[in-house]
Amino acid sequence: MANVKISIIGAGSAIFSLRLVGDICRMEGLSGSLVSLMDIDKERLDAVHALAVRYSKAVGADLKFEKTMDLDASIEGASFVVNTALVNGHSYLEKTREIGERNGYYRGIDTQEFNMVSDYHTLTNTGQLNFFLDVARKVEKLSSNAWLLQAANPVFEGTTLIYRETGAKILGFCHGFHGVDEISKELGLNIGELDWQVAGFNHNLWLTKFSYNGKDAYPILNNWIDEKSKYWKPKDPFNDQLSPVAIDMYKFYGRFPIGDTVRNGSWKYHYNEEVKRKWFGQPWGGADSKEGWAWYQNKVRQTTLDTEKLAKSKDADLLKQFPPDIMSGEQHIPFINAVLENKKTRLILNIPNKNNAVPYIPENVFIEIPVVVDSKGIHPEKIEPSLPEKLVFMYLFPRWLRMEWAINAFIKRDLGILKEFLIRDPRTKSEEQVEAVIKGLMEELPDFKFHYKSISKR
Amino acid sequence: MANVKISIIGAGSAIFSLRLVGDICRMEGLSGSLVSLMDIDKERLDAVHALAVRYSKAVGADLKFEKTMDLDASIEGASFVVNTALVNGHSYLEKTREIGERNGYYRGIDTQEFNMVSDYHTLTNTGQLNFFLDVARKVEKLSSNAWLLQAANPVFEGTTLIYRETGAKILGFCHGFHGVDEISKELGLNIGELDWQVAGFNHNLWLTKFSYNGKDAYPILNNWIDEKSKYWKPKDPFNDQLSPVAIDMYKFYGRFPIGDTVRNGSWKYHYNEEVKRKWFGQPWGGADSKEGWAWYQNKVRQTTLDTEKLAKSKDADLLKQFPPDIMSGEQHIPFINAVLENKKTRLILNIPNKNNAVPYIPENVFIEIPVVVDSKGIHPEKIEPSLPEKLVFMYLFPRWLRMEWAINAFIKRDLGILKEFLIRDPRTKSEEQVEAVIKGLMEELPDFKFHYKSISKR
Repeated sequence: MANVKISIIGAGSAIFSLRLVGDICRMEGLSGSLVSLMDIDKERLDAVHALAVRYSKAVGADLKFEKTMDLDASIEGASFVVNTALVNGHSYLEKTREIGERNGYYRGIDTQEFNMVSDYHTLTNTGQLNFFLDVARKVEKLSSNAWLLQAANPVFEGTTLIYRETGAKILGFCHGFHGVDEISKELGLNIGELDWQVAGFNHNLWLTKFSYNGKDAYPILNNWIDEKSKYWKPKDPFNDQLSPVAIDMYKFYGRFPIGDTVRNGSWKYHYNEEVKRKWFGQPWGGADSKEGWAWYQNKVRQTTLDTEKLAKSKDADLLKQFPPDIMSGEQHIPFINAVLENKKTRLILNIPNKNNAVPYIPENVFIEIPVVVDSKGIHPEKIEPSLPEKLVFMYLFPRWLRMEWAINAFIKRDLGILKEFLIRDPRTKSEEQVEAVIKGLMEELPDFKFHYKSISKR
Repeated sequence: MANVKISIIGAGSAIFSLRLVGDICRMEGLSGSLVSLMDIDKERLDAVHALAVRYSKAVGADLKFEKTMDLDASIEGASFVVNTALVNGHSYLEKTREIGERNGYYRGIDTQEFNMVSDYHTLTNTGQLNFFLDVARKVEKLSSNAWLLQAANPVFEGTTLIYRETGAKILGFCHGFHGVDEISKELGLNIGELDWQVAGFNHNLWLTKFSYNGKDAYPILNNWIDEKSKYWKPKDPFNDQLSPVAIDMYKFYGRFPIGDTVRNGSWKYHYNEEVKRKWFGQPWGGADSKEGWAWYQNKVRQTTLDTEKLAKSKDADLLKQFPPDIMSGEQHIPFINAVLENKKTRLILNIPNKNNAVPYIPENVFIEIPVVVDSKGIHPEKIEPSLPEKLVFMYLFPRWLRMEWAINAFIKRDLGILKEFLIRDPRTKSEEQVEAVIKGLMEELPDFKFHYKSISKR
């Protein structure tokens, strides 16, 4: 009987919250816990709370739930805080992108080389980064021993920022590593007999070890590429794990890219919609294209409707959508269970590069690698073989530098750094273009303006 | 009486060779030495040899000279080898640039962000880099205790390459740090009372310490900027040490850029001729513009004529051009004298980053910093204050990475790396553009083709 408090910040996202709640119900050791659901959207919070209570009862779990719109109240006394909130919501990101595109920045200024993911906003979503720090500082103050589980993006910039600026025990979570499952399934390999490792940064993750029954499995992958890759077609815009982009990146860097890494190549794959369709497949050209993104926006709208549908659903339907005996695949609750129950669990987490698992990268940068978690803490695996130097110097380093520039502009509230960052963007043709896009952001995004106007006070 | 052999490779450049020979004559301790002049251009070699003998006699120096077209013969038994040769000459660089411009690469593909200097060829002049290695390997074999003094560009790529690939005792030389003299003169400061340091890479050098009579002298520089910089005008295209570019870089990075660093900013200063004129001044727009480069090409032609003129000149004229009592300002001979005579001498040299003088940069990368040289070796100064982090992360790191990409493409003879390098160039609009420029280089530059065709043999 754990009897701990687990806080979920930004719990208004029904599907994600129910995945976590489901996982808590499935873990015997977490029985007796208090789950604190926090959101600023009362209506959605009420709906999710009711669903969580109902689900828990339906599966016979012994859990307590609270709902609150007060961040402090949710964090106070919590042993684990999961931050999944997207400040300002999707509409802010769309507005930002629109300002960028109006000024010649296709897909918006946050969409940078090696960070092409359209909703991983590192430059413009200052409200989100400030909220990350707010939550971390509250955790530090109100429940200083708690683990802070960062689930909302940008995980790379966010975790590193929190680590450097606060004393919170911060970890980053992502499910992108499941791309390894997709590969092994496509190759007809039993994932249980695979011995694999991934290493890199969040959304910059590479399959360093890939071994089957004790033998290197890369040759099996090579065979698939030679013989079967030509038949590959995307099932949806996000289905790119085995796309021509992934194969091209593998051929150049020497290891296979995993998860959203495939979306994060260089401009080679992203010059325009036609180029995107060539690399990511017809008809969408991947998730970060006009068509792919329209598909995604529609899905986001659908998700809101899903919440209403779920609220009206019968228990049987709820249990069908979130089966009581199948873990969600998210790692947050397995992490909590491993810590509380001292149950050694292998997870792929974002942690500081203290053991130099990613060579040449300073230790105050967050990397994504396999670790084993138990009640004593987090034990990083030795990455063997290591990431190839070519990959480190040509892929990870440029991405790392962009992280440093982004968080330095943010921390120092220095528009000069942001402008210089944009000067280095291949889409920039003149200094005037940079001035114009910054002017647009300052005039139309209150959060952004507030953040960068505050410099004089510091 | 030193009685050593000093080899000058690429001695056919009369002005440079006479500067070195003059310095040798001026150093009592080097009396009795043998100076071996080596070049593959017989006519120029003969002319320079005759001039050197004549100059030495005229000033009453006790030196022996030999001339040879055989690299091995010149290096064998030398204690110091100065490599100043430009393989393929200026016309090769012009040809390379022309192929680049034809394919949409303004000023050629070697002209990269943070390496805008038009004759610092890191990507296309494979013959030059191979010659660097040839010389180094011969030094290793034929006179293994000799110091190899790398004077020819690219010094940054070249010294690092030689250090990693051979066992030669390699050092890089540049005179760009004399920009500090220019600044102190403009500010009316006596250079003798200045306490200053520079740090960075070759052509990426920053005035970290600038102190006058024990007090920080940056405020004096700030005053000059506020009050007098508006009256500044370039004397020639290369005169940019106090240009608006230098001031803008200083305002952003927090330290003043020194020497060719001013030419090596981001595209902000280089988008086109009009932008260049704005930043580098009228009428040329700096050295790396159409007009500035025409001025330079004319000067190069003039230099050839100068050699003829020198050959026909009287001794008195020769002594007027190379005054016996004034050191040339080049550091090669002061270095040799310091080692041989155990005379502690402060120089600005390119050495491996072993003492972490440039933070975050690996120790197998060559940095440019002040050192004290004596017979025991090279003693790097502690850089105090250190380079600001902003400067390291936003300026030095991107340049460092481009060095790694360039020498990795070269070492592995991997056109794929070169292509990927170009994909990241803001001038690249499509993969086809990259293929076209590489095709041009392969078809029209025999050295380049030979280098990259040889991959199958390895």
